[in-house]
Amino acid sequence: MFITLEGPEGSGKTSQLPDLAAFLREDGWNVLTTREPGGTDIGDQVRQVLMRIDNTAMDPRAETLLFLAARAQLVAQIIRPALAEDRVVISDRYGDSTIAYQGYGHKNDLNTIRQMLAFATGGLIPDLTILMDVDPAIGLRRKKSEGEWNRMDAYELEFHRRVRAGYLELAREDPKRWVVLDASQSREMVQSALRQVVLARLTPPSVAHNA
Amino acid sequence: MFITLEGPEGSGKTSQLPDLAAFLREDGWNVLTTREPGGTDIGDQVRQVLMRIDNTAMDPRAETLLFLAARAQLVAQIIRPALAEDRVVISDRYGDSTIAYQGYGHKNDLNTIRQMLAFATGGLIPDLTILMDVDPAIGLRRKKSEGEWNRMDAYELEFHRRVRAGYLELAREDPKRWVVLDASQSREMVQSALRQVVLARLTPPSVAHNA
Repeated sequence: MFITLEGPEGSGKTSQLPDLAAFLREDGWNVLTTREPGGTDIGDQVRQVLMRIDNTAMDPRAETLLFLAARAQLVAQIIRPALAEDRVVISDRYGDSTIAYQGYGHKNDLNTIRQMLAFATGGLIPDLTILMDVDPAIGLRRKKSEGEWNRMDAYELEFHRRVRAGYLELAREDPKRWVVLDASQSREMVQSALRQVVLARLTPPSVAHNA
Repeated sequence: MFITLEGPEGSGKTSQLPDLAAFLREDGWNVLTTREPGGTDIGDQVRQVLMRIDNTAMDPRAETLLFLAARAQLVAQIIRPALAEDRVVISDRYGDSTIAYQGYGHKNDLNTIRQMLAFATGGLIPDLTILMDVDPAIGLRRKKSEGEWNRMDAYELEFHRRVRAGYLELAREDPKRWVVLDASQSREMVQSALRQVVLARLTPPSVAHNA
């Protein structure tokens, strides 16, 4: 089972994931968590290039290809081996981030982005993707107040609005894979919703009925 | 005018380029030289990831995307602006390296590689490409004796043989753009051939007749 968390900056993905994973492990699941960009030694080197606040000259196409490179490494080295061992893999961001940010955000051709994404991942698509939806004006304020701020955050608010609209469009197009959560709720409410959504997918309906 | 030098490892591209550029500048041409991967601050950061000898875990798809990322940055930041100013741009490696190494060498699908290359470069194709052809067994020995050795050099000899064969195939397919030089000749012979080939392209035939 391959689960991804997606959402605009400051939606709380990164802070919610450890609690979700701990809950699932207590429930007996063999969970591997990872994050993008990064999650491997080589991917973390790429992450540094992507996030360095002084890399302001970065071309949007270079940015797109760097995110895809980090992902290709993560899929080959970490995600595929873990799925082959029947582990539950939960990734903080994955391919839909590239469609939302580099496709909708930077207005690159979506078909081209999807083709390159298929190359990078060898066609690996998540079983469940949770969109932690939040107004980017709120999300960015939240993130800045926590003292984290990188080159991507610094894009204009209109960019982040296109990203959010792109995510919502992706979720509408594939409702079987996507679940949209309101990430502006309290931290506890969001965590509770995350646990319910993930458990419902992990546990086959018949077992759920017997429980 | 956009000129690229291509060839297997140890073909002498990197050591011949400064002399070629100096000769052209003395002849009055406004020359910009660059190299791949790198040639920009961001590209040099990507180059380090690509070339680090201990990044042995690198997935071939990640490698492909990193080369393309460095190139996208170079085209946007350096090559296109220089061509817009009518400069003669000479690059030590460019898109054909990706087709030869990541396509023929790693046996990735050539069509996919070409599509991603078109995305990275916005479709910018050189006016002249010089293949400095050398048997990779000789080229690698030459390179090792000079004390330069990176992660790409360390691929098996069969990989480098596929790269060379790929280059020769590319040159056969597009003889108007490509010129193949025998890079196993002496350094002086190769430099002389380079100068003749480049001058012949830079100088329109009518002017050459009057000279």
